[in-house]
Amino acid sequence: IMAQTKNVTFRWRRCSSRQQMTKSHTQESLLSSASGYRNYRGILNWCVVMLVLSNARLFLENLLRYGVLVDPIQVISLFLNDPYSWPAACLVIVSNVFIVVALYTERQLSKGSFTELVGFLVHCINLAIILMFPGAVVLLVPSMTPVGGAFVLGTYTILFLKLYSYKDVNMWCRELSTAKAKKLARSLSYMYYFVFAPTLCYELNFPRSPKIRMSFLLRRLFEMVSQKNRWMIPVIQSSMKPLEDMDLSRMTERLLRLAVPNHLLWLMFFYWFFHSSMNFTAELLCFGDRQFYKDWWNAETVSYFWQNWNIPVHKWCLRHFYKPLLRKGFSKIVSQSAVFFLSAFFHEYLVSVPLRMFRLWAFMGMMAQLPLAWFVGRFLCGNYGNAAVWISIIIGQPFAVLMYVHDYYVLHHRQEAD
Amino acid sequence: IMAQTKNVTFRWRRCSSRQQMTKSHTQESLLSSASGYRNYRGILNWCVVMLVLSNARLFLENLLRYGVLVDPIQVISLFLNDPYSWPAACLVIVSNVFIVVALYTERQLSKGSFTELVGFLVHCINLAIILMFPGAVVLLVPSMTPVGGAFVLGTYTILFLKLYSYKDVNMWCRELSTAKAKKLARSLSYMYYFVFAPTLCYELNFPRSPKIRMSFLLRRLFEMVSQKNRWMIPVIQSSMKPLEDMDLSRMTERLLRLAVPNHLLWLMFFYWFFHSSMNFTAELLCFGDRQFYKDWWNAETVSYFWQNWNIPVHKWCLRHFYKPLLRKGFSKIVSQSAVFFLSAFFHEYLVSVPLRMFRLWAFMGMMAQLPLAWFVGRFLCGNYGNAAVWISIIIGQPFAVLMYVHDYYVLHHRQEAD
Repeated sequence: IMAQTKNVTFRWRRCSSRQQMTKSHTQESLLSSASGYRNYRGILNWCVVMLVLSNARLFLENLLRYGVLVDPIQVISLFLNDPYSWPAACLVIVSNVFIVVALYTERQLSKGSFTELVGFLVHCINLAIILMFPGAVVLLVPSMTPVGGAFVLGTYTILFLKLYSYKDVNMWCRELSTAKAKKLARSLSYMYYFVFAPTLCYELNFPRSPKIRMSFLLRRLFEMVSQKNRWMIPVIQSSMKPLEDMDLSRMTERLLRLAVPNHLLWLMFFYWFFHSSMNFTAELLCFGDRQFYKDWWNAETVSYFWQNWNIPVHKWCLRHFYKPLLRKGFSKIVSQSAVFFLSAFFHEYLVSVPLRMFRLWAFMGMMAQLPLAWFVGRFLCGNYGNAAVWISIIIGQPFAVLMYVHDYYVLHHRQEAD
Repeated sequence: IMAQTKNVTFRWRRCSSRQQMTKSHTQESLLSSASGYRNYRGILNWCVVMLVLSNARLFLENLLRYGVLVDPIQVISLFLNDPYSWPAACLVIVSNVFIVVALYTERQLSKGSFTELVGFLVHCINLAIILMFPGAVVLLVPSMTPVGGAFVLGTYTILFLKLYSYKDVNMWCRELSTAKAKKLARSLSYMYYFVFAPTLCYELNFPRSPKIRMSFLLRRLFEMVSQKNRWMIPVIQSSMKPLEDMDLSRMTERLLRLAVPNHLLWLMFFYWFFHSSMNFTAELLCFGDRQFYKDWWNAETVSYFWQNWNIPVHKWCLRHFYKPLLRKGFSKIVSQSAVFFLSAFFHEYLVSVPLRMFRLWAFMGMMAQLPLAWFVGRFLCGNYGNAAVWISIIIGQPFAVLMYVHDYYVLHHRQEAD
């Protein structure tokens, strides 16, 4: 028995020795571009951990020194100048009128009381008023603050895009079949579901998720609340400091100083709005389509970035602007430029009107994307293209912001001096 | 013809209207863990861009204010105390003796001039001297600086691991077949190829890459040079500042302040050593196996991190320590703990001896990984586990570093006071 055991042990040992000798084979390092490896989920967690750690100390210091960071009166004063005049809130309430008008028009169209032409005209007038009326109020009412104005114009712009989509889809449906037309002008509750749903494109039947997952809802709520209060305020405060002692000759240095906090703020806003808030709303409404953004962080061309960072707007542009233009016989390049032009208009509208200052920086910033896209697409690819897109986001944005802040400062300084 | 054209246009329009109506479907956002999406290559580029931008300003400022950052005399003084005594360089030259002894022993073994027992004893004595001789020199020669000592001990430790592997592999080969034995003791040039190759595990035939890619070589060389000079020095300088005015009572605050630059330094060191330098060496030697690290950044458990961040050492431990222990009948958990114990010993050896200070912080830091691994594996999973691993890296490392720096400072302060 001893001999047998020894023999088995020996054979097993030889076998495992052979296993030890398994040769390594030729292979690339993961970080080399040749390896084709792309799983960096951990790096995202690293960014979150670093942000939390870097801010934890700042937050604790501020809390110990100044108490609660968010002064409620200061926050309210961003929205209100005169506590007895609430122009922003009033405008938001008035917006219901336009929703009801759009629904009423479609009802009449589906019953046949309005002809197509009358319905089209009513819709056009309704949409035109949605854009111009709040703009006029923001410009003319003195008690409107810039933050309140931007909030109102944002709300009305979203409503404009939604009702435009509503009009288009109903028209397409009537073109397709009269049988479906009965279903078109659905109830008031479905209309309001669309208004609150995190999408800009109307559909007759939205995809629905089976039920509200409470844990998911609470996690998104926690993210929404914690980000708003704890992270954003210190970052805003620290980024405002270099702006107070503004000096034209040191513009470039300020730009570099502003770039990083401004960029972090934008990233946090992106996560807060496009992930936490929209998912929260969608979960609450059992709205199924959660594709609010795609993988823009891997963008290797400028156009890939613009097509993927804001999917609701991108879908709207594609469905209600780009494709209709193509159908009307315009070339691809003209249609693409037109989309950028429309986007540039809305960027300018949302910035200039609340600030009561027409400088075209936002407009030019958006239009500058066209030559940039050409340059990046022509000369850079792969990781270099991706780095170029990141640099354009990190540097380009604060440049436009700095322009507005500088002009706003000069304007108000001069007025005080007068 | 007109009617026909109109008909075609109408049909085309209906068709495309139908395309417009394609319903969106239920789907999750990419950042939700439910989506299973993991491609974040762009985030890595973001980190690089942010690092370059953040350091560019600092570097420019320093360059304009102080001129060239790297003072050659200061750098040399890290390695040399006395310009006429070069103990580190002498020790590195002496290391060739041990290489030749190992080769000579294997030659004698393959010819049969040495019995297995004699060969084993010669190897053991050779390996023991490799560990003890430089340690004794570093401790006893007063002109040895801590940086020079760490460099010498690092070189000798690598040599120890390589020659241990050399001895093991040759022994296994002799066990397997006497026919192969002729090939075993290969020429001096192959021995030196192994010594310089970026691996710790000996093989009879290393996998080779077909040729040296000049562009790859130059890119890695650029990374090696640019990182060393431009990034590391400012980060080291800024991290040294809070240490100069060390105060025991504010230890925790210092720890948090030290954590981020220390961590960035470690990340840069990782990239510089494991990606740039090792790939450069491998390219130069046409060494095929470039797996110097795996995807430790996605580690969701502590053991996954230790198994993937340093593949040469991990492979060596597995092949020459862990598996032999298993074969000898030890259980998995005992063998794993033994590996951590060995690793802890070498960490302590590489830190304590050059500093001439035996405090066991590095040893305890490594041994603390065992309960940490148990805790993370037991209570955390997925992204939470990953975040826990990151936090342990970011906080744990500077804790040990701070302990040594504090003790070193106290020791040298006391000596000055005496």
